[in-house]
Amino acid sequence: MGLVVQKYGGSSVADAEGIKRVAKRIVDTKKLGHEVVVVVSAMGDTTDELIDLAQQVSPIPAGRELDMLLTSGERISMALLAMAIKNLGVEARSFTGSQAGVITDSVHNKARIIDVTPGRIRSALDEDAVAIVAGFQGVSQDTKDITTLGRGGSDTTAVALAAALDAEVCEIYTDVDGVFTADPRVVKKARKIDRISYQEMLELAASGSKVLHLRCVEYARRYNMPVHVRSSFSGLEGTWVRSESEGDDVEQAIISGVAHDTSEAKVTVVGVPDKPGEAAKIFRTVADAEINIDMVVQNVSAASTGRTDISFTLPMTDGHKAIESLTKAQDEIGFESLRYDDQIGKISLVGAGMRSHPGVTAEFFEALSNAGVNIELISTSEIRISVVCRADQVPTAIQAVHTAFGLDAETEEAVVYGGTGR
Amino acid sequence: MGLVVQKYGGSSVADAEGIKRVAKRIVDTKKLGHEVVVVVSAMGDTTDELIDLAQQVSPIPAGRELDMLLTSGERISMALLAMAIKNLGVEARSFTGSQAGVITDSVHNKARIIDVTPGRIRSALDEDAVAIVAGFQGVSQDTKDITTLGRGGSDTTAVALAAALDAEVCEIYTDVDGVFTADPRVVKKARKIDRISYQEMLELAASGSKVLHLRCVEYARRYNMPVHVRSSFSGLEGTWVRSESEGDDVEQAIISGVAHDTSEAKVTVVGVPDKPGEAAKIFRTVADAEINIDMVVQNVSAASTGRTDISFTLPMTDGHKAIESLTKAQDEIGFESLRYDDQIGKISLVGAGMRSHPGVTAEFFEALSNAGVNIELISTSEIRISVVCRADQVPTAIQAVHTAFGLDAETEEAVVYGGTGR
Repeated sequence: MGLVVQKYGGSSVADAEGIKRVAKRIVDTKKLGHEVVVVVSAMGDTTDELIDLAQQVSPIPAGRELDMLLTSGERISMALLAMAIKNLGVEARSFTGSQAGVITDSVHNKARIIDVTPGRIRSALDEDAVAIVAGFQGVSQDTKDITTLGRGGSDTTAVALAAALDAEVCEIYTDVDGVFTADPRVVKKARKIDRISYQEMLELAASGSKVLHLRCVEYARRYNMPVHVRSSFSGLEGTWVRSESEGDDVEQAIISGVAHDTSEAKVTVVGVPDKPGEAAKIFRTVADAEINIDMVVQNVSAASTGRTDISFTLPMTDGHKAIESLTKAQDEIGFESLRYDDQIGKISLVGAGMRSHPGVTAEFFEALSNAGVNIELISTSEIRISVVCRADQVPTAIQAVHTAFGLDAETEEAVVYGGTGR
Repeated sequence: MGLVVQKYGGSSVADAEGIKRVAKRIVDTKKLGHEVVVVVSAMGDTTDELIDLAQQVSPIPAGRELDMLLTSGERISMALLAMAIKNLGVEARSFTGSQAGVITDSVHNKARIIDVTPGRIRSALDEDAVAIVAGFQGVSQDTKDITTLGRGGSDTTAVALAAALDAEVCEIYTDVDGVFTADPRVVKKARKIDRISYQEMLELAASGSKVLHLRCVEYARRYNMPVHVRSSFSGLEGTWVRSESEGDDVEQAIISGVAHDTSEAKVTVVGVPDKPGEAAKIFRTVADAEINIDMVVQNVSAASTGRTDISFTLPMTDGHKAIESLTKAQDEIGFESLRYDDQIGKISLVGAGMRSHPGVTAEFFEALSNAGVNIELISTSEIRISVVCRADQVPTAIQAVHTAFGLDAETEEAVVYGGTGR
């Protein structure tokens, strides 16, 4: 029996009852003979409540202090969980990110893990204790300050610890039964995916699927750590995320799923002089403002004016910053005006099988067209096609695509139990 | 301008408004040219709420995990306070007990400070920042686990840091204007004490005065650190606690104040064989259960039976444990039965002047007798007399003694602003 890392999100430990239920599940796993390391998020809405408090005392809370504040959330849930486990007669010890050896860079509020040195966790396991670790947090290698990994960071903590401890599997417990072929809140006949490759999961996560955090999947792929996404409210098998070669499917599904994202906005830079280096100036300006852009499209230049338009999408939360930095650089870049549109939605079709099935793109566009959805931007990777349309057309669009690719289940099988953790 | 350590209790930082008010006061101190270190408690009722949560998941929460849980309280208040100060344009950095170098023993829930190594605090001050330190918490020297100092521990943190940093003064901000001649909630005409010696303050704290924690005063005396107890809600001078020789009073008051304590219970061990070693067995049994006893009285032995009764007082919260451990040892000790009484109250009269005024004891007993208060136990030190009476007679008793010793103010001067911190 090997070592298992289990991660429980905020909705699983939202109150004392939830904590006791999770404790029971952990004790059951331990009694099967596994070594168990548990990564836990803050209870329910704690993080949002703390952010709200921060904004009451300071409109722009300092990053270092915000991290100090937010990390109290996991401190509460992990201590309570350890108590609840001990109450069931099994030894348990809680550890902060720093105590667990989660070493990060110094970028507050979105630090990256650079090393994991889980000496104290290993000792606790050797003494037959369950180790409970605060998700989402670490300690800066340079400044020794407390850092947080950003939203979804607890998943990353779990996989990073699993890799460092050479775990058999990293189980991510959530409030749905696994990864679905589409968001079951939108597509009622979405089906649970039993097995998916790291690469497909990466594309789904990058395209707006909320079940697993992108950096967590990247980490899992890099260390080849099998991830089992499952519900903390049921005993069902969930979705296994692992390397493609390990799959034992004879016939692979062409399409794994459809993801959507309505958290992005579109910026159009109008009247850009059509000469080399102009696009570079625009994207350098945006990059200097530390904004990650997603899709980019350059319109065909109008020969008569010698000018062109460049559009890109970015997280809506970065919209203001992007407009501000581009406006400052307007004279240098020489564009005419800016347009900002946050009423957009992105639909992405993901599947490793599409590599060898050239008809997928055509079928995708036909499905959207038949549903009356107008496509505004297109971007593709080897195993993904994404389009941007109007935000209010997203539900129609996903449903149409889901049906067209034969992904619909015979009945509505998904059960959504609670909110989302981090 | 020297270094000032300021400690703010939970009632001073109970909400965002309180935190902003405290931030303003800290910034004002900094702008006077002082180096400022701030020790802060958890917001309002946070600690009690966390204890309540712990009890929901486990009837007897593990000490290590309870400390992990409770320390999240100061983490929240200190981060918010640092944000609020930065928002006023002054640099501030928050530090956990561990980061501030508060090294303790390993006794969870009531650890003792064994060393303070405030290197990071000194660095923050050198960089012109205000250092905010979590009160009440430290890190165990042996196990590196997080510890807490017990109720009132934040005061001790403040004085210990002040001593380690060679501060000019340690200011303890609270919800009353200082130390009073009696609890102003009970005695309406209690007067604020302007100056008091460490020894008198120790006796008051040990006798139930809640304003300063006993260990904090012990620490202050050991390091000869002047403590200024004052209100965070007003700008008034409070009470200075410092060594007797530093006082410039020509004529010292005979009596400093009257303290009371209704948190104790009385255990009577009935029918103890009247021979050498019996009392020792009883108190060894109680000490082995880690219970601190307060007053002790042995009745005159009844010659006919060869047996005697021994009574002692102890914190009510330890009552169950004491009865349990004595009952287990009943055969060995050979007593007949146990009586338990938690309807008692203790009144103490404290004053350095009583050393040279022999009439004080008589006057004290007369005042009580005139008020119809029956005395059950008596204990004295060089500068204190304490008696135990019925709990419901405590208000009458204190008022009578306060008036008899001329301590009443002409008007009701005390203002009580909020709850009590820790």
